[in-house]
Amino acid sequence: MRRAIALAAGGRGTTSPNPVVGCVILDAGGQVAGEGFHARAGGPHAEVVALRQAGERARGGTAYVTLEPCDHTGRTGPCSLALLAAGVRRVVVAVADPNPVAAGGAARLRAAGVPVETGLLADEAGRGNAEWLTFMRRGRPHVTWKFAATLDGRSAAADGTSQWITSAEARADVHLLRARSDAIVAGVGTVLADDPRLTARPPLERASGPPLRVVVDTRGRVPAGARVLSEEAPTLLAVAEGVTPGPVGAAEVVRLPRAPETGLDLRALLSELHKRDIVGIFLEGGPTLAGSFMREGLIDRVVGYLAPALLGDGAAALGPAGVRTIGQTHRLEFEEVVSVGPDLRVTARPAPSEEN
Amino acid sequence: MRRAIALAAGGRGTTSPNPVVGCVILDAGGQVAGEGFHARAGGPHAEVVALRQAGERARGGTAYVTLEPCDHTGRTGPCSLALLAAGVRRVVVAVADPNPVAAGGAARLRAAGVPVETGLLADEAGRGNAEWLTFMRRGRPHVTWKFAATLDGRSAAADGTSQWITSAEARADVHLLRARSDAIVAGVGTVLADDPRLTARPPLERASGPPLRVVVDTRGRVPAGARVLSEEAPTLLAVAEGVTPGPVGAAEVVRLPRAPETGLDLRALLSELHKRDIVGIFLEGGPTLAGSFMREGLIDRVVGYLAPALLGDGAAALGPAGVRTIGQTHRLEFEEVVSVGPDLRVTARPAPSEEN
Ligand SMILES: NC(=O)c1ccc[n+]([C@@H]2O[C@H](COP(=O)([O-])OP(=O)(O)OC[C@H]3O[C@@H](n4cnc5c(N)ncnc54)[C@H](OP(=O)(O)O)[C@@H]3O)[C@@H](O)[C@H]2O)c1
Ligand SMILES: NC(=O)c1ccc[n+]([C@@H]2O[C@H](COP(=O)([O-])OP(=O)(O)OC[C@H]3O[C@@H](n4cnc5c(N)ncnc54)[C@H](OP(=O)(O)O)[C@@H]3O)[C@@H](O)[C@H]2O)c1
Repeated sequence: MRRAIALAAGGRGTTSPNPVVGCVILDAGGQVAGEGFHARAGGPHAEVVALRQAGERARGGTAYVTLEPCDHTGRTGPCSLALLAAGVRRVVVAVADPNPVAAGGAARLRAAGVPVETGLLADEAGRGNAEWLTFMRRGRPHVTWKFAATLDGRSAAADGTSQWITSAEARADVHLLRARSDAIVAGVGTVLADDPRLTARPPLERASGPPLRVVVDTRGRVPAGARVLSEEAPTLLAVAEGVTPGPVGAAEVVRLPRAPETGLDLRALLSELHKRDIVGIFLEGGPTLAGSFMREGLIDRVVGYLAPALLGDGAAALGPAGVRTIGQTHRLEFEEVVSVGPDLRVTARPAPSEEN
Repeated sequence: MRRAIALAAGGRGTTSPNPVVGCVILDAGGQVAGEGFHARAGGPHAEVVALRQAGERARGGTAYVTLEPCDHTGRTGPCSLALLAAGVRRVVVAVADPNPVAAGGAARLRAAGVPVETGLLADEAGRGNAEWLTFMRRGRPHVTWKFAATLDGRSAAADGTSQWITSAEARADVHLLRARSDAIVAGVGTVLADDPRLTARPPLERASGPPLRVVVDTRGRVPAGARVLSEEAPTLLAVAEGVTPGPVGAAEVVRLPRAPETGLDLRALLSELHKRDIVGIFLEGGPTLAGSFMREGLIDRVVGYLAPALLGDGAAALGPAGVRTIGQTHRLEFEEVVSVGPDLRVTARPAPSEEN
């Protein structure tokens, strides 16, 4: 199963709106007969790739799959039937399929007399599929908030200057994470301050095309000619109901209700993105918008690039996030800490008690 | 030499005001004949311990020492002579002794026909002796600034509450670092806000006694009865010239010039501590005092405990540190990142260009 999870990772960033899946087929003697992963939406499922490779050796063998085999005929036939047809005698699954359309594969296999075990290394496999599982289970996109700051949590100096706090290596790493996401989201404050392109450079080859750029812009303040409005990638401009922004080029405008406190209703934004099959979003900030996402409990992963530097003054990486007293602190768990050039990349997710 | 450096670490925190030193003696055949480290001020030097263990096997052998052997008769005889008397034929040294009183050991050995090589693993050995080398080379104590903060660099919530941002494990680790230092320094702001004891619990057995507690208190505002004035450890209260604080119990009061900008002249404070053989100080903050130390370029090591948490509001871990624009950022290098319970401990030091 560990191998299947590693295989699954081969599809990271290119399978959306599908999950990543890996599969290993052992023959009747317990030898590896076939391996496969789901590489892109519309392409063959992991099971099909592995079965093809295994050929006759699959008969009487065991399939290890990171996600419950599908039971529906979408762009490819149901994997449950493919496994039965190949004569696989036992199926081991990491994570059960929460997708009501695709689920039922395990039931069909069992009905045909093939035992299915579920839950092996489920946590590990689930982490590799965090975006998609959040999308399915919560009915909204998975949100990764990225920030870059000094060790004392600042993103700019007192006079507003900020280029570059983190290294070229860290910035390249950010582009990789952008490329793997379905949408890159920023507040209009960031657009006004930095005029970012919000594209992934270099891009990943994806069936779903380059990530959608989303600007959260209550009052339609994005300036005509802003780089985020260029035609190199699609752009969605979210404004408040009744607002008509200036010229936005090819960008699509969506009107959303306002939040009671400030700006737009972020849940409405996420359900708008959910409708468009946006599975994983990469929230680039700024601090004000990120604070609102955090306050609403809508951040599923935090990726912080920490530079070995201290400022002592200047803009904070995170704006007000609904915490007044220490007991309300947003508690996380560190998932990974790695060096990226001279910087640290710290990945964390909400501590279990806060999760639901 | 790597083994000698590891041995040296055995004296960490208990040798002050002496350096940590490790020594390995190989016999003429290249086999380890003796090992030793300097365990506490007044105790035998590393070379003497290792030579004793080696006995006759030292004759014709090689000594690996992390620091140049001393040449003076202090509380123990000169190690240079001990090595000569034992018939050692070659000496390999990591770091030359910057101490004008003790240095000369290599010269004396060479004069007696024993070749001395210097510089092997000097960086690594030097890191283990950072406090003492700073003390000797710069004529002031080595300053470690510790802070505890959330991932977004905050030390308290908006309403001022802060207990506990970091974990019990992190707090225990802080006590170990306190215990290894010669002085624990805090600003009066911290004393007024938290009434800390500023002691190391449990203490280390040290010839020099428990760390000196130092309160930097320009106007003598420390309240009578503050816990830092208790008799469990010595306390030094630094106030401005002409200031007479209220009752301070057994604490010693020292009067220092004011800094042109704010508070006391920190260089004057450090030279006061240098006079008292304070080699390594542990600066506990708060943010205002730490910012001043940082602005003056007086911080040699930063130890940050980062909790997996986000606040988005509240007091910053570091106050104004003299940075107005991004080019003036205090640049560091990460030295170590480890997990301490659920938290991260990040150790960094000024980047070479700033070190001068
Ligand atoms: N270090 C980093 O990783 C990083 C990343 C990005 C940006 N930045 C920096 O952050 C700065 C800009 O940040 P910022 O905080 O001013 O702007 P921002 O967070 O990018 O955008 C804030 C704006 O978003 C709109 N918005 C709509 N709905 C919202 C909601 N529910 N909650 C909050 N905002 C909502 C609001 O517009 P209305 O006021 O019209 O309602 C608000 O003013 C720039 O200096 C940029 O360089 C740093
Ligand atoms: N997270 C952590 O690791 C940590 C550690 C310690 C404290 N804290 C928190 O920090 C808060 C207190 O911090 P604070 O910033 O108010 O106080 P502080 O830094 O502890 O003390 C500041 C005071 O030190 C005096 N001082 C003397 N010389 C100075 C100089 N050269 N530069 C700056 N100050 C000098 C000044 O007194 P005068 O005004 O009389 O001149 C100044 O007001 C508390 O809430 C505490 O809980 C956090």
